[in-house]
Amino acid sequence: MTIWMNTLTATLSIPNLGSSVPLLATATEGEADSALVLASVLLSLVVIYFASKLGGEICFRINLPPVLGELVGGVIVGVSALGLLIFPEGGATASDSLLMQFLQATSSLTPETAPAVFSAQAEVISVLSELGVIILLFEIGLESDLKELIRVGPQAAIVAVVGVVTPFVLGTVGLVYLFHLDIIPSVFAGAALTATSIGITAKVLSEINRLTSSEGQIIIGAAVLDDILGIIVLAVVASLVKTGEIQVINIVYLMISAATFLIGAILIGRLLRPFYVNLINQMKTRGQLLLVSLSFAFVLSYIAQVIQLEAILGSFAAGLVLAETEKRKELEEQILPIADIFVPIFFVCVGAKTDLSVLNPAIPSNREGLIIAAFLIVVAILGKVVTGFSIFGQPNLNKLAIGVGMIPRGEVGLVFAGVGSASGALSPSTDAAIIMMVILTTFVAPPLLRIVFSEPVPVPQEQQPNP
Amino acid sequence: MTIWMNTLTATLSIPNLGSSVPLLATATEGEADSALVLASVLLSLVVIYFASKLGGEICFRINLPPVLGELVGGVIVGVSALGLLIFPEGGATASDSLLMQFLQATSSLTPETAPAVFSAQAEVISVLSELGVIILLFEIGLESDLKELIRVGPQAAIVAVVGVVTPFVLGTVGLVYLFHLDIIPSVFAGAALTATSIGITAKVLSEINRLTSSEGQIIIGAAVLDDILGIIVLAVVASLVKTGEIQVINIVYLMISAATFLIGAILIGRLLRPFYVNLINQMKTRGQLLLVSLSFAFVLSYIAQVIQLEAILGSFAAGLVLAETEKRKELEEQILPIADIFVPIFFVCVGAKTDLSVLNPAIPSNREGLIIAAFLIVVAILGKVVTGFSIFGQPNLNKLAIGVGMIPRGEVGLVFAGVGSASGALSPSTDAAIIMMVILTTFVAPPLLRIVFSEPVPVPQEQQPNP
Repeated sequence: MTIWMNTLTATLSIPNLGSSVPLLATATEGEADSALVLASVLLSLVVIYFASKLGGEICFRINLPPVLGELVGGVIVGVSALGLLIFPEGGATASDSLLMQFLQATSSLTPETAPAVFSAQAEVISVLSELGVIILLFEIGLESDLKELIRVGPQAAIVAVVGVVTPFVLGTVGLVYLFHLDIIPSVFAGAALTATSIGITAKVLSEINRLTSSEGQIIIGAAVLDDILGIIVLAVVASLVKTGEIQVINIVYLMISAATFLIGAILIGRLLRPFYVNLINQMKTRGQLLLVSLSFAFVLSYIAQVIQLEAILGSFAAGLVLAETEKRKELEEQILPIADIFVPIFFVCVGAKTDLSVLNPAIPSNREGLIIAAFLIVVAILGKVVTGFSIFGQPNLNKLAIGVGMIPRGEVGLVFAGVGSASGALSPSTDAAIIMMVILTTFVAPPLLRIVFSEPVPVPQEQQPNP
Repeated sequence: MTIWMNTLTATLSIPNLGSSVPLLATATEGEADSALVLASVLLSLVVIYFASKLGGEICFRINLPPVLGELVGGVIVGVSALGLLIFPEGGATASDSLLMQFLQATSSLTPETAPAVFSAQAEVISVLSELGVIILLFEIGLESDLKELIRVGPQAAIVAVVGVVTPFVLGTVGLVYLFHLDIIPSVFAGAALTATSIGITAKVLSEINRLTSSEGQIIIGAAVLDDILGIIVLAVVASLVKTGEIQVINIVYLMISAATFLIGAILIGRLLRPFYVNLINQMKTRGQLLLVSLSFAFVLSYIAQVIQLEAILGSFAAGLVLAETEKRKELEEQILPIADIFVPIFFVCVGAKTDLSVLNPAIPSNREGLIIAAFLIVVAILGKVVTGFSIFGQPNLNKLAIGVGMIPRGEVGLVFAGVGSASGALSPSTDAAIIMMVILTTFVAPPLLRIVFSEPVPVPQEQQPNP
């Protein structure tokens, strides 16, 4: 119905049609015109796909990971450069959006109706981007090996804990003693150094065919634990800033719910496996495997989201569980095109939301931040690189690669910066320093990861490792 | 960033955390909490997939088209029954939505924050549903044969014109002379009888493997022309209602833009084909075929949308053009899983938005409508069934099947009802009669189509061979 309503509203807006009073009040009343929202979403997707492929192809040709190209492509179309793809949470309005200007020039969008369409478009693209990372983690889970993950569990746990404690302590102490910052902003900046961005590393590992190596599985396992530790650190720091003390009950709550969720999802998933396979075999209509599997992933994502964890933990757990069924190979094949169209939305949006203006040394207020940033970047990299060497024994492991795999902070650190700045705990320069640290670790990790894994294995990336 | 911001906002809303002042004002200010929007979209998708598969599987087992099951599944979860999946344009609010109540029970959603989350969720699902029908028509275009479509063009044009004129004249004249309605509401109701819903028929044809038959291609061609004629009829009727006269210039504008668009898209697409194949062969990163092809489809959809046509005409034209390249087979394979996850959203939403309460004869005000509805349904079916027999010669064509394929009015008629009712041109009973006509033709066509095509060809529709 909406499709036609759109046409109608559009049709009625031709001035010649002589219809200044909207005939269909219900479709336009106080809401964004859905024809224009659809048009703007279509255009945004074209921009995203163009940016992701242009960046990806260029990076591939100069032997850098394609995902880095997607991030850079996002930066170019995003708030830092062209302003084609921008989001209201950065404070942007419809008039800043080149996309909205293009729509105004080509469609019936007016400056009056633009804000509603802009915010609806940003909302839809944000959700698609979140679905992108959910599907990415589902795919990573599917490609992971639960037995291998459990086998490397102890090492992953060491890597995760060392990788949270080292940068946190180094960062906080360094800021207090070297830069004479107050305790609270120092703790905040230290906390921002803790959590690894699982998406970027996992994508690079997948691109260079190292996801299923022992190192790859340790990195993934540690990054998942890191994510949970990061949530706990954030809760601790947030309550510290707010009340001046640490509320033990929340930490206990978060730890218990995370452990219960992950173990519970895997155990219940294992119990349900025969039912799942049987259900899919019984079903006769198109898409049964995908829809049942994605529904399972979305249910776990929903649960993870509402118990204050992250949606991506749910889809990762779902992927892990379904990887152990006989449907794994077929599901991997079918999820591939879906990941192809959803995942770039996530990476391009991460790039598009990154504001590079904080890196400009010509702006005086950035300079103090640049010095702190340099310190944070060193700590961020060193604090994670050491993690691999915290694994004793295991001489065959590429320990440097493990540490490097933990470097990217991605979106996680940006949240700390956002929270810190909004709460008044961070000065603008420290805030900018955290953002710079995030940008640099995110962009530096993919090429570094390729280098430390030396030559990529010569298997083409599209190929499934078949039994 | 959003993912983590979500977690953050969610985390901060645990009362124990002692954070009543939102730390991150930018993320929550006046907008729906994006963590909860994501959670509600995930839940909506699970509901949609469950409804589509449950309905589809049941229909398959009783030898009805699965798409009918998806529509019925949508009705069951939608506004007519469970109220799980409802949309504000029907006048529903957050408190009517069972999904929102479930979210309130399981997450940090409150009655105060529910309306914003509800409208954002509905917005996202509506766009996903529109993307669903865009992808469906792209797939249909890919599976169609442009040469065959051009060959059957004259027949399709006859079918389209006869199928617009017959029900319009019969309906309008019948209402004026048999039911003594005024001219304007009669014209409105007559106009509502004109346009075929291409989505439902195309899906059924595809399900029974008749899409590429001559009959199938005539139906698709006629339905596409019908869609354009429908837009023109709507413009004419709307201007008639508004000004009491018909504005020839708009009709000319719409006809020229439709013809220019379709012919132009196909000609330019043909010119660009070697470039397209070459571009994809040059690209080295994952998903290149899909992203380039979908971008092409989205650009054409955008253009169709902003020149007052429909987005689906653009994606259909894109599919037609790409079907003639050497990438067709590969693209068809890759688009399959994407259609599998997007298309059910469209059909379930069509069902969910259908309000069956107008069919209840226990409500006195429905009774007058039911009589008019019975008349409209007869005209709607007869007016389209005759179209096949308007093709002279061609004794081998299944003419009944062509007419039956044109029966479903789907969403198109609902727009007429909505416009008519909002403009005051239609009385509530005539309005309800149009809605009933739409419901019945939509639901009756899929099984009828199967019957008139007698036995389905015995090719299994799920063609992935399992080892």
